[in-house]
Amino acid sequence: MATRLKGKPVADALSAAIREEVDYLKPKGVQPALTLIRAGEKPDDMAYERAIIKRCESVGVKVNSEVVPESISQADFFNLLDTHNQDPAVHGILIFRPLPKHLKEEEVQYRIAPEKDVDGFHPVNAGKLLTGDPAAFAPCTPMAVMEILKHYEVALSGKRAVVLGRSMVVGKPVALLLLAENATVTIAHSRTQDLEKVTSEADLLVAAIGRSEFVTATHIKKGAVVADVGINVDDAGNLTGDVAAAAAEEMAEAYTPVPGGVGSVTTAVLAKQVIKACKLQLK
Amino acid sequence: MATRLKGKPVADALSAAIREEVDYLKPKGVQPALTLIRAGEKPDDMAYERAIIKRCESVGVKVNSEVVPESISQADFFNLLDTHNQDPAVHGILIFRPLPKHLKEEEVQYRIAPEKDVDGFHPVNAGKLLTGDPAAFAPCTPMAVMEILKHYEVALSGKRAVVLGRSMVVGKPVALLLLAENATVTIAHSRTQDLEKVTSEADLLVAAIGRSEFVTATHIKKGAVVADVGINVDDAGNLTGDVAAAAAEEMAEAYTPVPGGVGSVTTAVLAKQVIKACKLQLK
Repeated sequence: MATRLKGKPVADALSAAIREEVDYLKPKGVQPALTLIRAGEKPDDMAYERAIIKRCESVGVKVNSEVVPESISQADFFNLLDTHNQDPAVHGILIFRPLPKHLKEEEVQYRIAPEKDVDGFHPVNAGKLLTGDPAAFAPCTPMAVMEILKHYEVALSGKRAVVLGRSMVVGKPVALLLLAENATVTIAHSRTQDLEKVTSEADLLVAAIGRSEFVTATHIKKGAVVADVGINVDDAGNLTGDVAAAAAEEMAEAYTPVPGGVGSVTTAVLAKQVIKACKLQLK
Repeated sequence: MATRLKGKPVADALSAAIREEVDYLKPKGVQPALTLIRAGEKPDDMAYERAIIKRCESVGVKVNSEVVPESISQADFFNLLDTHNQDPAVHGILIFRPLPKHLKEEEVQYRIAPEKDVDGFHPVNAGKLLTGDPAAFAPCTPMAVMEILKHYEVALSGKRAVVLGRSMVVGKPVALLLLAENATVTIAHSRTQDLEKVTSEADLLVAAIGRSEFVTATHIKKGAVVADVGINVDDAGNLTGDVAAAAAEEMAEAYTPVPGGVGSVTTAVLAKQVIKACKLQLK
């Protein structure tokens, strides 16, 4: 039977480490603080916001929630963002995405202060990730995958990792993070020919293609580790991953379940990135 | 017998297209101009500089050569760089690298104006490359590889590309450029296990590992296309690539020779990037 690489123990361990950092900063008169900026009332955003607030409160990271109407002008949105960019008591900023369409993401991403950009939105953080700068902020989801692999001591150096998906929020950054750990990394995607052959070479398969139970037993090498980044809802209303759970059980040595896997580590990673931002800003 | 994908016809075609752009800009009162900044008298830099000047003069791109002593202070270096950053008659800037050690590359890279950064040095250009922004400037060598593949109509979409090497000047950017062309891209490197197996999966193998004739027949799938980015000097003083020429002849359907391959396209790519910068700045 395959081992389930559950997220909760990882999030708990991260939370404990974060609390120590918060306790260390307190006597210096510093409380790490995160600003959340949400335009509109999308249920997904609101659920993520609640989870972030809960996690951050539990570890001593202050959260400022800024909720603005979906119809906010870009000028007003920038004014709000600038206020938090400039506020020395704010160390991290997360903007819920996707933004309402009239707000130009390609302009907003350049407006967030890179040193507060704890979800890796600003292109300069993408650049730092590519160049291997340790001050880079990668998006939280790929960082959550890496924290799980580290926690469960999954060997990466020299191993073959295949990342299925090439988005800027998961696929590309996780590929670079795995490369930095000396994995041999392949990025596969919708145009990949003979996909099952490619994914079956993976010692580590990261599924981030956003299609419910797309990955089946024929995609997985026997004994591989599978990280499932997908969060989908199937026709019956159940939460599903990008990997068919039965296939992971049958083929993998270990895999992250959905729910209870990668997604449950994201908020702890976010809190950790706020601490990182805070410490870099204190330097 | 394998086809040699020579660089000269590619550089000639690029040059012809650049001349047309220059002729189009001239009546608008604009002459595309490139500033070269060289600290010290390294023979490699000086040879590259001569080649750049020759190419640029032949296509109507103006070159300003700034040569400063190797001992220049970082403050003086920044002053010089700022002058060209701010000069509206300068559209592109290339700084010869590696820099003298006392000049901090991690600071210099942030000082070059991103919109004039025609060799993709500033991390924000790395970030644009990662996010897929068409305004990105990638370094010239990986762009030269892409121009050769395009010129000779090498199919990339869905094909397996293996990039051997993960430097910021070649490996990582060429991997992203190939991914943008819908190749299935694997990045292999010094820590890769079972390297010959990995490289032998490649329909396109890009060798950028910087080791003379490292790639032999056992690394190449029969019928693959091989792009050799290496420029090495062997014990006998001959210029060699990262690929053993006899191996490429034996196994590849087509390959870029060394010399006369990728390296001979770089200056034309640089001139093309100056035109791109110029046009973006005129917008």
